[in-house]
Amino acid sequence: MMIDFDAAVKRLAAAEDVLILTHASPDGDTLGGGFALLRVLHQLGKKARLINNDRIPDKYSYLCPEIRQPNFREKFIVSVDVADKALLGARVGGIYGGRVDLSIDHHENCRPFAKETYVEGGSASVCEVVYLLAKALGARIDSGIADCIYTGCSTDTGCFRYSNVTKRTHEIAAELIEYGAAHAQINVKMFETKSLAFIRLQTLALEQLEMHFDKKVSVLAVTREMLEKSGAEEHEEDAIVALARQIEGVRVGVTFKEKENGVFKASVRTHEGIDAAKICAAFSGGGHARAAGCSFECTLAEAKRLMLAEIEKHI
Amino acid sequence: MMIDFDAAVKRLAAAEDVLILTHASPDGDTLGGGFALLRVLHQLGKKARLINNDRIPDKYSYLCPEIRQPNFREKFIVSVDVADKALLGARVGGIYGGRVDLSIDHHENCRPFAKETYVEGGSASVCEVVYLLAKALGARIDSGIADCIYTGCSTDTGCFRYSNVTKRTHEIAAELIEYGAAHAQINVKMFETKSLAFIRLQTLALEQLEMHFDKKVSVLAVTREMLEKSGAEEHEEDAIVALARQIEGVRVGVTFKEKENGVFKASVRTHEGIDAAKICAAFSGGGHARAAGCSFECTLAEAKRLMLAEIEKHI
Repeated sequence: MMIDFDAAVKRLAAAEDVLILTHASPDGDTLGGGFALLRVLHQLGKKARLINNDRIPDKYSYLCPEIRQPNFREKFIVSVDVADKALLGARVGGIYGGRVDLSIDHHENCRPFAKETYVEGGSASVCEVVYLLAKALGARIDSGIADCIYTGCSTDTGCFRYSNVTKRTHEIAAELIEYGAAHAQINVKMFETKSLAFIRLQTLALEQLEMHFDKKVSVLAVTREMLEKSGAEEHEEDAIVALARQIEGVRVGVTFKEKENGVFKASVRTHEGIDAAKICAAFSGGGHARAAGCSFECTLAEAKRLMLAEIEKHI
Repeated sequence: MMIDFDAAVKRLAAAEDVLILTHASPDGDTLGGGFALLRVLHQLGKKARLINNDRIPDKYSYLCPEIRQPNFREKFIVSVDVADKALLGARVGGIYGGRVDLSIDHHENCRPFAKETYVEGGSASVCEVVYLLAKALGARIDSGIADCIYTGCSTDTGCFRYSNVTKRTHEIAAELIEYGAAHAQINVKMFETKSLAFIRLQTLALEQLEMHFDKKVSVLAVTREMLEKSGAEEHEEDAIVALARQIEGVRVGVTFKEKENGVFKASVRTHEGIDAAKICAAFSGGGHARAAGCSFECTLAEAKRLMLAEIEKHI
């Protein structure tokens, strides 16, 4: 059942012995929102702990440096930033997925799975929602809570860069700075730092950069060999995908990622006026107008040839 | 003479036939602040025009698409974001440098050169200052003015990333979004887009990346050969300098830039605890604690050897 803001506040105010669930492959918003809620519940004198399906990357350790995780039997389960039960991950989803009491979310097109769901679709981050809930619960926003909330506000907007940023996003950021959020240090951690392996992967990929159709189309590839040579992890490919469209004058950027089974996954990124989903539909793929994907079970050269022939119809 | 906010408002309210000067090699803040002031003065029914010593890069063309530059004899000259007369550039400085009526600035350590100077040192950008002046002048903040102000707020803070961001920066950004600033499109233009030549230069430089002292020190070089091969312009080296320190675990990042005369200019960037200015002082250079520079008149290999020997004393 969908509930409103006031009902969500009431449920949290009444909750005891709370287990907080965050989504698998955790990012700054789910962890920022989850740990902010944990800190708020502790402040209100409640028992609470947070779990994640996966290992929490070291760079987020400041969100809860002295995490108290008392082993109690949970009476209330709340998920933060989890748009679909499957996103809890196999392990956590398998144990708790069927008995979540309250889901707090900001994904317009989420698939409700909890007993009650409070979703604010227009919010740039779930952290904005958790911040408003925390204030309504009467929590004192200390610098620790401010750090957590700021982390989600910043990471889910590419540091206030994307079109999901609203007036309210900046208003909340202003308040968080007043509450002592270490905004500059957090941004260095979240945005400035790149692993040496990623730098190497990026260099290997860019050495093979191809430009087509009067430099309107860029093509990159990340092969298994590049991953091995650089020592980068597979999730680091995502930042390479973003590069292809960032080149001046490029209208379509394509990145082919070689998977373990020899399949090439293509990520297509476009600027306004060219529909990435339509390009990928030609290969039984899909996605959004600006970002879509599809797969090829052939050689990289053949995949490129097919993709470029399709793109030519759209530019 | 230094004047206060109210006096600056009075001067601008009384000014007629205004010439606005911006600093040479213009950036988003000097142009955003200058064009915002131009639009405000036009709105108040005054004649005004803006000039720059150098060509204004195309990416800033949205700041004033239909720029009316009537040719009148100026009665009042105001500079925006110009911390030192020399920064006006040789041509503009030569003609107007000695007769600026009002300098509006945000550089704490500016060298006043105008008849009157209004400087707000704690402001992240001059655009914050111009915004407050515009409101005090009774201007209606339309979406065009909001675009100009937002551009400076965003570019001078690395899109709200740096430590110069204050509560007020975000409060103003929130208001600008309400006034219709095209924040997301501006950020794409200012931060997402990279020239193909820069991508090539970065790739060539990173191919030669060296890591020293247990990966705590990174060394990059940009040679004349790389500049020629990539087609990049010399000012694009600056973004390479930033890369060296962004690598995870790196405490000191050094970038050597080969100048036309065969000299190697070293840019040293450090994280907290290591003083870049002290390192560069060993080679008669200087700068700030986190960013400093010095020069070497020897081979690149010798310059690297000398620099690494000095760095070893500091880490």
